[in-house]
Order: sequence, then C-alpha cells, then structure tokens
Amino acid sequence: MIGDPVLVEAWRGPLVESRHRGAVAVARADGKLALSVGDIETPVFPRSAVKALQALALVETGAADRYGLSDEELALACASHSGEPAHLEGVCRMLAKAGLDASALACGPHWPIYQPAAFALAKTDAPSALHNYCSGKHAGFLCLACAMGVDHVGYWRPEHPVQQKVRGVLEALTGTILGPEQCAVDGCSVPTWAIPLKNLACAFAKFSTGQGLPAEPAKAAVRLRAACTQNPWYVAGTGRFCTEIMKLLGSRAFVKTGAEGVFCGALPEQGLGIAIKCDDGAGRAAEVVMAAIIARFLPLDTAERVALTRFVNPALRNWNGIEVGALKVTEALAAR
Amino acid sequence: MIGDPVLVEAWRGPLVESRHRGAVAVARADGKLALSVGDIETPVFPRSAVKALQALALVETGAADRYGLSDEELALACASHSGEPAHLEGVCRMLAKAGLDASALACGPHWPIYQPAAFALAKTDAPSALHNYCSGKHAGFLCLACAMGVDHVGYWRPEHPVQQKVRGVLEALTGTILGPEQCAVDGCSVPTWAIPLKNLACAFAKFSTGQGLPAEPAKAAVRLRAACTQNPWYVAGTGRFCTEIMKLLGSRAFVKTGAEGVFCGALPEQGLGIAIKCDDGAGRAAEVVMAAIIARFLPLDTAERVALTRFVNPALRNWNGIEVGALKVTEALAAR
Repeated sequence: MIGDPVLVEAWRGPLVESRHRGAVAVARADGKLALSVGDIETPVFPRSAVKALQALALVETGAADRYGLSDEELALACASHSGEPAHLEGVCRMLAKAGLDASALACGPHWPIYQPAAFALAKTDAPSALHNYCSGKHAGFLCLACAMGVDHVGYWRPEHPVQQKVRGVLEALTGTILGPEQCAVDGCSVPTWAIPLKNLACAFAKFSTGQGLPAEPAKAAVRLRAACTQNPWYVAGTGRFCTEIMKLLGSRAFVKTGAEGVFCGALPEQGLGIAIKCDDGAGRAAEVVMAAIIARFLPLDTAERVALTRFVNPALRNWNGIEVGALKVTEALAAR
Repeated sequence: MIGDPVLVEAWRGPLVESRHRGAVAVARADGKLALSVGDIETPVFPRSAVKALQALALVETGAADRYGLSDEELALACASHSGEPAHLEGVCRMLAKAGLDASALACGPHWPIYQPAAFALAKTDAPSALHNYCSGKHAGFLCLACAMGVDHVGYWRPEHPVQQKVRGVLEALTGTILGPEQCAVDGCSVPTWAIPLKNLACAFAKFSTGQGLPAEPAKAAVRLRAACTQNPWYVAGTGRFCTEIMKLLGSRAFVKTGAEGVFCGALPEQGLGIAIKCDDGAGRAAEVVMAAIIARFLPLDTAERVALTRFVNPALRNWNGIEVGALKVTEALAAR
C-alpha cells in the first residue's frame, strides 16, 4: 500500500490539485492475473463491495427460495441503496416474508443518501435503520437466521451462526483464512474481514461466472449476479455510479462500491473479476478507476464508449455549473 | 507532492484501512521555517483557506469602515459558513450596507452545510447563492466594488478591479507573482491562485501578527484576525472544526479550512503561520494535521490538551455509535 502509484489526478485549471494512489487486481477464476497495479497482496477491508458474496449464503442455503425472495429483493440483499421509497418497501417485504419487521434491523439509522428522500423524511420524521443503505443486506441476514432456525437477535455479531456462515463462504470463495487479526466492525456493525485484492478479484471472477465453484454455489452465484445486473436501481439508486454502469452495460458488467475507496466487480463474459482500493479512501477515485478498467477490458460499441467517458474522465463543475477541472486516470492504469 | 509522506492513518480495528499523504509548512513572518514536511515548494490552490487574506483589501481600502461592517460581518467575509439563519442575516446586512441585495451574489446556490438548516429550507424553498458557504466572502467583494466606485457586475472575474486588487494583496503578502499559469476557477467562481505552502505559512504569520507589513495592512490584518477569533461561529458554524478550535483557544489560534484538503492558520503569540495540503484532498486528514500542529507548537493547559485530543486523534464511530477505529497522525509529524 505504501508504494502504490498515483491512479487518478484531480485537475483544476492548468494544475493537478489532488492525487489518489491505489492498487488494482483483475483476475480470472483460476487466479491468473490480467492486471496487477500496486500492492494487491496486503489484506484490505472490502466493506460493502462484497455484499454480493455475503449474500451467497442466503441463496445457497435455500433461505431465499423458502421465503420466495424476488430478484429485486435479492438485489437489495447485495445493495448499498439510497433509501428511496421502493428500496424501503423492498426491505420491508423481505423482513415480512421472514415474519419480522424493521425493529429487527441492527444496522443503525442514517438519513437516506438520496437527497429528495431525506428532505421528504425530514418533514415529518427522523431516519430509522430501514433508511440505512445496508438495510437490504441486514434483511438478508435476518432471513438467513430465520431459515437456519437460530435466534435472529445478535445476527450481526461475529460469533453468531449467520456471520460464521458468511465468513465460511468468504473464506471458501477467496481462499483465505479469516481470523480475529483480519476482523473489524463495519459501518453497519457486522464484521468486515480484510482480504488481499488479488483474492477478491479471483473471488469475483468465480462469483460472476460460477467457474471453479461446486454446482450449488455456482448456481447461487450466477443467480445473484443476474439479479443485480437486471435490477441495478435496487443495488444503489437514482443517479448512482453502480446503477448507471449496470444500466448501461446490462449483464456484461457487475460493479459494487464499498466505503473507503473500495470497488469490486466483474466482467462475466471475459471471465474477469476486479478489485480496487484507493489508499486514501476516496470514492470519487475508485469510481474513475472502475470505469477505466471496464473501458480497457470490455469490448464496447461507440455509443457505449461515449456514454462511459463521463465516468472515466468526469468533469468537475462548480456551484455555477462552470467546468473547473476533471478527474483523469494516470499512466499507471495504461496498458502495459 | 509525489514524494510526500503519509501524515494521517485511518485505523479500523487492528489494521490501517486508509492513508493520507501531505505536506506542512510552519513559518515565521521573516520566512524562517519552524517545520517543513513534504513538498512545500510546489504551488497548491489554497481555496477557501485564504479567505481572510482575500478580505484584507476590504479593510485596507477603508471599504469596511465606509459601510460600518461589524466584526461579525468581517468574520463572515473570511468564512466558509454553514448557512445557518444568523449567517444569512449577516450576509444580507453586508449587502444592504452597500445598497445591494442577494441578487448581486455570483457564488452559485447550494444547500446549507448545516443539516437542520437544509431540512428547514427544503420544506418551503430551494437554496440560493445566499446559502453558499462563500456568500460572506462574496458580500465582502461586493462591498469593496461599491466602495471602489466600480461596476459590481462581474466582480468574480479575474480581470475585474476587485479580483485584481485581491490578487495584488495576495502577491504582496505571499511574495509571489500570480499569473494565468497559477490561476483556476474556485467552487464559487472567483479565481483561486496556486501558491507554495512555505509562502502561505509565512503570509499567515504576517497576517496574524502584522509583523513585516506596512502600518495600514498590518492594522487591517490584526483587526480581521481578531474579528475571526472573537466570532468563530461566523467563520464556520455549529459543530464545525474551525469554530470549535477557535472557541477553545480564543485569540491564540486562527484556523481556516479550504476545499481539497487545504488548511491554513496561525498561532499569533508564537508568531507562526501554518499551511497544510493533503495530497488526496481529504478534509478529515487536514483537520487532524492542523490539530496536531497546534498541539505541538501552542502551549496548552491540561484541560485544553484534553479538549484538543478529540481533534488530534478522533475516534471513528459507525451508525450505531460503536467505536470502530480512529484517525492517527504518523511519525512524519513527530518532533524531529
């Protein structure tokens, strides 16, 4: 991490104003690397970028079928949603199917990411755990707890059977052993396990293609990935990067943001998994890197390439809408 | 900038999750350096961190006296305010004293930084340029234009007499020549001029003490600095770093944030000016560095040292209030 190159520059007028360092791994399901930039060996907390992997247990165990979860609801289990009305309705449906309600959620409250939803809520009420962008993941954990027949209270603790199950899935998929020395508490209070980028990239190649997985996990993975790429609004929300990219590219790209500059994803047709960490935790840089990786590895028609440009090389505008600069990827991400 | 050391680490549980690099200059009015970390020679855009220097012309020219600007209003001219009601009232008073109203402001609209103010506004209205955190600075520019007897329209353009005057003050105070190759457009559309950190630090030593300045600019500088340190709520707002630090330390510390990880300030009794740039633009890291510099150079009693700890070493808490990590300064900022 210390020697990572600058991946993204923030230009203002004639000068570079800020610089973002980071590391990127692009890998196949067999672990072969298609790209390696910076330190991809040191474990990093993948945060919300592995929600789709965390949701695998929900499908693999049959819990999703038992409660008849729809594809939109599966997408919500993998989401960092914006707290828009249909997101909340979906999470409530998931909870109701397991015989629970929002009071079971342990993710903590925050205002909806989507500003109009926050303003609407503020007129009459304060936010609840339902508005937390992780509430779909938590509803998935609660469905899993109920289907497993264990007490759902404390489902967020590292020692709870749900989190142990999730840890096992992550270990199997990433080829790691995840002990207390890799464990911290995530923003929504569940454990987050530090994993090297190269293992994360390989895991997302497996996840998106089913390659290298036993039959049941492979089926579960491909189903979850399709649920996300076919319902991208449920994975994030109005105007968000993950939603816009998957709307643009359909099933050809899966992308998922995580806090502190992490991004994971996959290009299923190319058999490639992607894992990105910006050292400084900057989400704006992680988005640019993800867009640049897609532009490099995914065959695109002219219209798609044009549409992707605003993510690869986004203009920076000020409060008057004047273009004052741009984010640009550096040579470190150029083909070598 | 490229070789700048890591100044701040973001820890999560047992591991460093993210790292912020940067540079710091602490200097006296004669240019002697008390501390130099990283690249302090390359020009950086100081953004809003030099608002107090930009406001000097307002006082020096007699415009502030002509319109009878209060100390609170002078603090607003140096502010990145939170858009709370009394901030807006102050800006309106400044404009009215020059015979103008909010329609003259060219800073562009955005929602108030202070969330309750944004929620209150959203119930009935949308934001205007008045809510922009730079509206006090712009009101100061408009007062200056009117006092100078020039057309105030276009006061934000680099070639307008107001911005030429401000550029001259910045050149004189920082000992630089500011041409088009150092010029970009700021968030509020006025020019921002790139200046090396060592020059900024020296300029803030002069500004806060009056040392090394002719009599009139020295008087203007000390008056502006006192207006800010005595009215810290007007420089930022409820709960903000600049406000809390100046409330805690009174006239012994002047601090002012800027976008993209810049912080400037001064310790007048020590005769020291401070200039900080976090390479990645992270405000959270710039605050920690500023707090660490204050803790190092300013004699503090035990209560002050304890009160400063939450800024030097802030805990990171999640949505449930659980302490999940902390920001910590590195050895690069330790005494050497």
